[in-house]
Amino acid sequence: MKALEEKILREGKVLPGNVLKVGSFLNQQMDSDFIMEIGEEIARLYAGVPVTKVLTVESSGIALAVAAGIAMHVPSVFAKKHRSANLSKEVYTASVYSFTHKETYEIAVAKEYLGAGDHVLIVDDFLANGNAIRGMMQIIAEAGAHLAGCAIAIEKGFQGAGDKLRAEGVRVDSLALIDSMTESGLTFRA
Amino acid sequence: MKALEEKILREGKVLPGNVLKVGSFLNQQMDSDFIMEIGEEIARLYAGVPVTKVLTVESSGIALAVAAGIAMHVPSVFAKKHRSANLSKEVYTASVYSFTHKETYEIAVAKEYLGAGDHVLIVDDFLANGNAIRGMMQIIAEAGAHLAGCAIAIEKGFQGAGDKLRAEGVRVDSLALIDSMTESGLTFRA
Repeated sequence: MKALEEKILREGKVLPGNVLKVGSFLNQQMDSDFIMEIGEEIARLYAGVPVTKVLTVESSGIALAVAAGIAMHVPSVFAKKHRSANLSKEVYTASVYSFTHKETYEIAVAKEYLGAGDHVLIVDDFLANGNAIRGMMQIIAEAGAHLAGCAIAIEKGFQGAGDKLRAEGVRVDSLALIDSMTESGLTFRA
Repeated sequence: MKALEEKILREGKVLPGNVLKVGSFLNQQMDSDFIMEIGEEIARLYAGVPVTKVLTVESSGIALAVAAGIAMHVPSVFAKKHRSANLSKEVYTASVYSFTHKETYEIAVAKEYLGAGDHVLIVDDFLANGNAIRGMMQIIAEAGAHLAGCAIAIEKGFQGAGDKLRAEGVRVDSLALIDSMTESGLTFRA
């Protein structure tokens, strides 16, 4: 998605530790019209594919999952980190290791919101080491649901996790796929 | 908003401890078309009022803030709980006590995303004791920005925090205002 690549080049900042900061439009601050454009692009990519639910992990994925759900007219579900007091005890869970925070956390989805009849599209803002996606895939498998694919805004292609998923037959669509990233510049996969 | 009241009566569940569970359409699972209707209702309520930013707190407020931002074509910003590694050190912060989790947490907004020229609309899923809103108001004041109002999906009116804010001159619009709530039923303010 050319508009996303241009926005990353214009507003993104590469910080030490392979961190790409896109807080001005995709994370802490969300450019609403642009978020909705991304949602519509995801809907276009999956136009011919059965999708009954969008799934993400709180909290940075929620904005894109909501926009994709609105564009596709299907519910979006977000996996919670840790167990919440308001969450039913009847949950699917998976463990996810976060390289950013250097800790393992649990993600959980109430069983009532995912079932065997669901075709689930995973949506997230970033794909780096793939751990969050693997956790969501585990939850989808536990629910007996079908994984329709993974729609990601920004893939850090140089970390290899996206290509590994593709090699396993998982459909992964990244709207911006970064092949190399340093503080002096970025290159996108052609 | 009649449609929200009806949805609460149909799908909401009152749990012990004054908890209203609306996870099937407003929290863990989001009814996308309905979330967008709420966003459009908020845009309609604030049609004549200058609003440059929507502000919420992660993570349950994000979906509504995104929908309102999309409907109003203004950016939405979410305050993070705790300080994140990806967040600039230049932040506005406030302390918020959560009755649900019985702990105090910090909320933070990077200074680059709120400024003196902003007219800020606070959006959240619930208004109960008002602590999250007071925290956001403190951040808006620190930024020297103007508070346009608070647009809330569900206000627990019987807790009194919303009326206290109104008595202080703060504009608070709740799309469903619950005056009493027990496990056997709910009544909305006429």
